[in-house]
Amino acid sequence: MSSSNRPSGLIANSGIELLTWGTPNGHKASIILEELKEAYGKDYVFQGINISENIQKEPWFTKLGPNGRIPVVVDHDQGGFPVQEGAAILAYLTRHYDPEHKFSFTDPLDLSRAEQWIAWQHGGLGPMQGQANHFYRLAKERIPYPTQRYVGETERLYGTLDSHLKDRDYIVGEGRGKYSIADIANFSWVNVAYFAGVKLSDFPNLEEWWARVNERPAVKKGTSVPSESQIVNAAYLRRLKDEPEFKQQEEELAELLKKAKEQYNYKYSSP
Amino acid sequence: MSSSNRPSGLIANSGIELLTWGTPNGHKASIILEELKEAYGKDYVFQGINISENIQKEPWFTKLGPNGRIPVVVDHDQGGFPVQEGAAILAYLTRHYDPEHKFSFTDPLDLSRAEQWIAWQHGGLGPMQGQANHFYRLAKERIPYPTQRYVGETERLYGTLDSHLKDRDYIVGEGRGKYSIADIANFSWVNVAYFAGVKLSDFPNLEEWWARVNERPAVKKGTSVPSESQIVNAAYLRRLKDEPEFKQQEEELAELLKKAKEQYNYKYSSP
Repeated sequence: MSSSNRPSGLIANSGIELLTWGTPNGHKASIILEELKEAYGKDYVFQGINISENIQKEPWFTKLGPNGRIPVVVDHDQGGFPVQEGAAILAYLTRHYDPEHKFSFTDPLDLSRAEQWIAWQHGGLGPMQGQANHFYRLAKERIPYPTQRYVGETERLYGTLDSHLKDRDYIVGEGRGKYSIADIANFSWVNVAYFAGVKLSDFPNLEEWWARVNERPAVKKGTSVPSESQIVNAAYLRRLKDEPEFKQQEEELAELLKKAKEQYNYKYSSP
Repeated sequence: MSSSNRPSGLIANSGIELLTWGTPNGHKASIILEELKEAYGKDYVFQGINISENIQKEPWFTKLGPNGRIPVVVDHDQGGFPVQEGAAILAYLTRHYDPEHKFSFTDPLDLSRAEQWIAWQHGGLGPMQGQANHFYRLAKERIPYPTQRYVGETERLYGTLDSHLKDRDYIVGEGRGKYSIADIANFSWVNVAYFAGVKLSDFPNLEEWWARVNERPAVKKGTSVPSESQIVNAAYLRRLKDEPEFKQQEEELAELLKKAKEQYNYKYSSP
């Protein structure tokens, strides 16, 4: 997006407007919106908020999302009501725009089970994998202790969800489960496992579930909003195969992680 | 609790049973349960789960709370239904046991506002202040970069809520707001600000709100489950005054934080 197109305010007058960027938390919002579009014909517009340009810290944005983070959903049909925080966005959109409960639950215990696994993602998997990204890859210094701490905690969490998915197709629902916002919330982070130094293939139930969710047309569309992602597992594994320099750089990061784990006697265990 | 009293299974057959420890996340559950008790006479029993003894990792516990973390609430009147994750516990208990909506909302937009601020705590304030605790105080090594990163992020979040509370008594609700689970969720972490190296008095709206919530009888009771907390602000400030050794140790930690912030050119800004 060129700087002349830098977003500076809302652009719609009715329906749902999404302010987002191509991150795991952004994908949660765009996936549920694509699902609602496919299921009910509910349309939405989006604006790409380039977080490296700090657009999400500008006053027009923080008036809507006071935390200064994407995604934010604005419901123009509710007087421009803004919703921030992924877990709250998933709850709001399904409560208002999923009348047949295709992606949510009416049974009070299943409703709570979905809330529990969404909260588990929102307070555990998301923040911890986010810190793993930071220390494994993004921070200016490679510091062994926090690197193994956060990649390790992410692995513990993956193990917990992997155990839960034994004999299940989806996270919540009777029998083998029903695809729902609990899957969307967790998928968005599992979909960038490799980027954070976590080998998804070490978690077979989770990997199968990931592939199952990833096949959905609305998920493919949702993970391409506002533009195709370069950090999702599929793109990561493709680059590993096609780009020798990328492969070498990734092997170096993996070696540093291995050393950090050894230095602090990290042993995988879950939960 | 002596090891002969080490919990090894559920102890109640009806009503609500809380498995908890005296941490901010534990306090969320015990505060709402004390509020429901005072408002409706709804009783509950609790067991102290000493997390330093890893009771929360034992099979009987993880069958209920697969993440292996406190608090877990078990509703024996719903077939022993277990609820893990603070945000999901607050939602479940008010949906089922707050029929007059004394601590929750019926207006769909206020309901969403409460969800947003609870999610904000659950995914931001809680995890980040938890990491601040770790690097400021608990980790074996004092590592400057993550220390200033997490204390700084916690300060940013405190600033966000402080701005929101300008001209408000409580986080959600018309006018100056109504005390609700959004306050309980956030209070539990703001109530241990000093322990994490954050000076609550730097955030005047937040400090006033904290004092307002802290005065409630149910909050006083809830923060003493399973036993009186030594890390809440009131206990911390008392120890600072009464215990010269504690004061000296705390001044040393504060000095290390100051140096870490200088080393990485930390500048407070919010959001």
